Amino acid sequence: MTDEKLTPQNENFSEWYNQIVQRAELADYAPVRGCMVIRPYGWALWENVREALDSRFKASGHVNAAFPLLIPKSFLEKEKEHVEGFSPELAVVTIGGNAELEEPLVIRPTSETIIGHMYAKWIKSYRDLPVLINQWANVVRWEMRTRLFLRTLEFFWQEGHTAHETEEEARKETLSILDQYADFAIKEAAVPVIKGRKSNAEKFAGAVMSTTIEAMMGDTRALQSGTSHFLGQNFAEAFDIQYLDRNNVLQYAWTTSWGVSTRFIGAIIMTHGDDQGLVLPPRLAPIQVAIIPIYRTDEEKEAVLPVVEKVRQELSQFRIKVDDREGVTPGFKFNDWEMRGVPLRVEIGPKDVQKDSVAIARRDIPGREGKSFISQENLAGTIQDTLETIQRALLEKATAFRDANIHDPKDYAELSEVVKNGWAFSWWCGNAACETKIKEDTKATTRCIPFEGQPGGEGKCIVCGKKASEKAYFARAY
Amino acid sequence: MTDEKLTPQNENFSEWYNQIVQRAELADYAPVRGCMVIRPYGWALWENVREALDSRFKASGHVNAAFPLLIPKSFLEKEKEHVEGFSPELAVVTIGGNAELEEPLVIRPTSETIIGHMYAKWIKSYRDLPVLINQWANVVRWEMRTRLFLRTLEFFWQEGHTAHETEEEARKETLSILDQYADFAIKEAAVPVIKGRKSNAEKFAGAVMSTTIEAMMGDTRALQSGTSHFLGQNFAEAFDIQYLDRNNVLQYAWTTSWGVSTRFIGAIIMTHGDDQGLVLPPRLAPIQVAIIPIYRTDEEKEAVLPVVEKVRQELSQFRIKVDDREGVTPGFKFNDWEMRGVPLRVEIGPKDVQKDSVAIARRDIPGREGKSFISQENLAGTIQDTLETIQRALLEKATAFRDANIHDPKDYAELSEVVKNGWAFSWWCGNAACETKIKEDTKATTRCIPFEGQPGGEGKCIVCGKKASEKAYFARAY
Repeated sequence: MTDEKLTPQNENFSEWYNQIVQRAELADYAPVRGCMVIRPYGWALWENVREALDSRFKASGHVNAAFPLLIPKSFLEKEKEHVEGFSPELAVVTIGGNAELEEPLVIRPTSETIIGHMYAKWIKSYRDLPVLINQWANVVRWEMRTRLFLRTLEFFWQEGHTAHETEEEARKETLSILDQYADFAIKEAAVPVIKGRKSNAEKFAGAVMSTTIEAMMGDTRALQSGTSHFLGQNFAEAFDIQYLDRNNVLQYAWTTSWGVSTRFIGAIIMTHGDDQGLVLPPRLAPIQVAIIPIYRTDEEKEAVLPVVEKVRQELSQFRIKVDDREGVTPGFKFNDWEMRGVPLRVEIGPKDVQKDSVAIARRDIPGREGKSFISQENLAGTIQDTLETIQRALLEKATAFRDANIHDPKDYAELSEVVKNGWAFSWWCGNAACETKIKEDTKATTRCIPFEGQPGGEGKCIVCGKKASEKAYFARAY
Repeated sequence: MTDEKLTPQNENFSEWYNQIVQRAELADYAPVRGCMVIRPYGWALWENVREALDSRFKASGHVNAAFPLLIPKSFLEKEKEHVEGFSPELAVVTIGGNAELEEPLVIRPTSETIIGHMYAKWIKSYRDLPVLINQWANVVRWEMRTRLFLRTLEFFWQEGHTAHETEEEARKETLSILDQYADFAIKEAAVPVIKGRKSNAEKFAGAVMSTTIEAMMGDTRALQSGTSHFLGQNFAEAFDIQYLDRNNVLQYAWTTSWGVSTRFIGAIIMTHGDDQGLVLPPRLAPIQVAIIPIYRTDEEKEAVLPVVEKVRQELSQFRIKVDDREGVTPGFKFNDWEMRGVPLRVEIGPKDVQKDSVAIARRDIPGREGKSFISQENLAGTIQDTLETIQRALLEKATAFRDANIHDPKDYAELSEVVKNGWAFSWWCGNAACETKIKEDTKATTRCIPFEGQPGGEGKCIVCGKKASEKAYFARAY
């Protein structure tokens, strides 16, 4: 923690981001280029993300397992698109136990191949299906340009890998997981996301169809926040995942894969943060309430501390932190917890002791307006209500911001303008050439073809003017 | 699941172990030599181990974080003993993004070095101490002879790394963690462990003192089940972890590290398992109660299933599984859940429906003796009591077995005999030569010099006959 001001968002959003990640002690740079250390505060946030997702997966019948970090290099070559997509990004182990390996091993960039290999061994009959396995793991992709949380050589994620009897079932799983992701993002993280499918150019290497949840960051750039892929029979064929069907005929299974990563921490930071620092949604915040005793004299201290203790006990259902540090001013503490994005601050001073009240300050509403004095009576209830109000307010604010920055440009020239500082929602013919032209001219990419909010009917492609049956989002992205 | 019988323990314990790990679907072999896949049932067991340890760490003020998988090779060379210990076991990444790396990176075999590097950056003053961080991570050690869970190239563990102001505090932390490990092993896993310190030959590479919890497996061999190391200032000096003390003088910090790994799953299997399969302690079992409906006719089925459903709801506080598979006999189901070590089986048949009863069968007492009929009234209470009884019985049985197989040989010849099928608890002068002689003659190693149960006074070293002030355990070990 330093007293230095953060670079304001509108001055340099990217610099603001880098500063906040380090000053709020979410993460730090590791000695290896592009790697990060996730510090305890950042990891506690990730643990809450993990728990919120994991409980959804388990409630829908998925189980966790652990597959190996090291994959024979030859495995990647079994699926043509997959190896093309991932081979530039591999970290390769060539030496083990002081000896050169006969076959180099890659550190998993994703686990379709090794899991496919195991599924081929485990799955014999339709009775063994569906297989619904997830793993929480670290993966490595040798990225050239890295940013803490957003793009790092090593990152943490969950990757689900399922195998099904029919195409329909696998497609249903793909979309059902996307719904879980959206539900998590909206309800837990207060990050409004748009569900849709990726264009062919943007889809996962080896997938038949990729779906995504896309979020708008505070600088209007898009962040792909989770993806769910329908893999068809591509990996089943490459790894020989076959089962005897109900008619005793050998069939290839239908598979899916899906993931949310520590990148999502970046989404939380850049959706809600402001010039004072982080703003965390109450449902995921490692500390929901910071309690700060306020006193100047020993006499005041003696009056205040017992009330602080009483309040601490009364609020034990929340994730709280009593900041009883000596030798730093209340003002310093206020700034500190603001920087760390704690949703609610409770201040208890001598006047509050007299009046049976406490002062509360909402992190999402800076200054006087977010402050109020409430009774100590039914404190837990009031705090609960206030946290829920904050959670709702964050989602509303982020949704309003997003909607205000989505444009419907009337022509290509206008599209080129709006994507400088927002998203375009435009008719697209589906042709890769049009997509490429937008990318080359404006750096905006096809974020997704949304499942909801399609006007229906037909329109004209914003690029080539030809017939188009769907609209897509175009935006610059992280 | 296969109908084939397990190899009996007394015929070939090692073969029994390999079979059970795979047949109970705890783990499977990965395509890379020495690596494993932890299957959902095994991972659920590990998740329960993790939760039991993690809650203890958090309650004692520790926090979790995540440090990088990849470590510059040069880091390992900074601590002399450390590099000697670990360099034969390293997996080395030499290629990243299709290019040869300037400096090779090793996959962490343990994280003292990289964490030391970060601590040096974060710790400035005594006010920053203690730092009490743990991480749940995967590590890689290039082992030559591997066994599922017991010794694999990649394994999962928690590694705690703490830094302190004083030697006393760091030593206290080392022992306090060892107490937590023992508490976990005994209370949660029903694995009676002996706490002690390692001999110099057996200590962690780079530690001043290593402490351990040692358990006896069903074949009387020892398994080191968790270790906690006092590192002195060795790593602080190697990585320059310095702080300004209360007198404004620069000092090296005192550090500790400690870990429990997926090896502990092996300890659970080999402490409690029998010729029918796994036996899991109720507090850690992924499934505590298997409920099996029993019927032959449709009429019976109609009578039984509603009661099964009622019981399922009544037992929702437990981790239960209703085995409603069609087309397999109850006998098959009994064997299946026995193989998987589910502590308690509940059978519900037509007679039970009439009598308002259920049949329960304890996994830890095979056959008739472990079976009883209990009322459906207050079922949850009875099940709770029975699970607690099983938990206690497992610990008692394992403790009795261990104590029956610890010997106090009168001379070296007798020691050589007893360690063939048990442990020796003998006076030892502390000299490495005596320890080496035992190892060379008998394959038994010094397991630990226990903290408790020392007779006091003096004795004669079991090997050389010279003065000895402590007794040590000697045993063949995994």
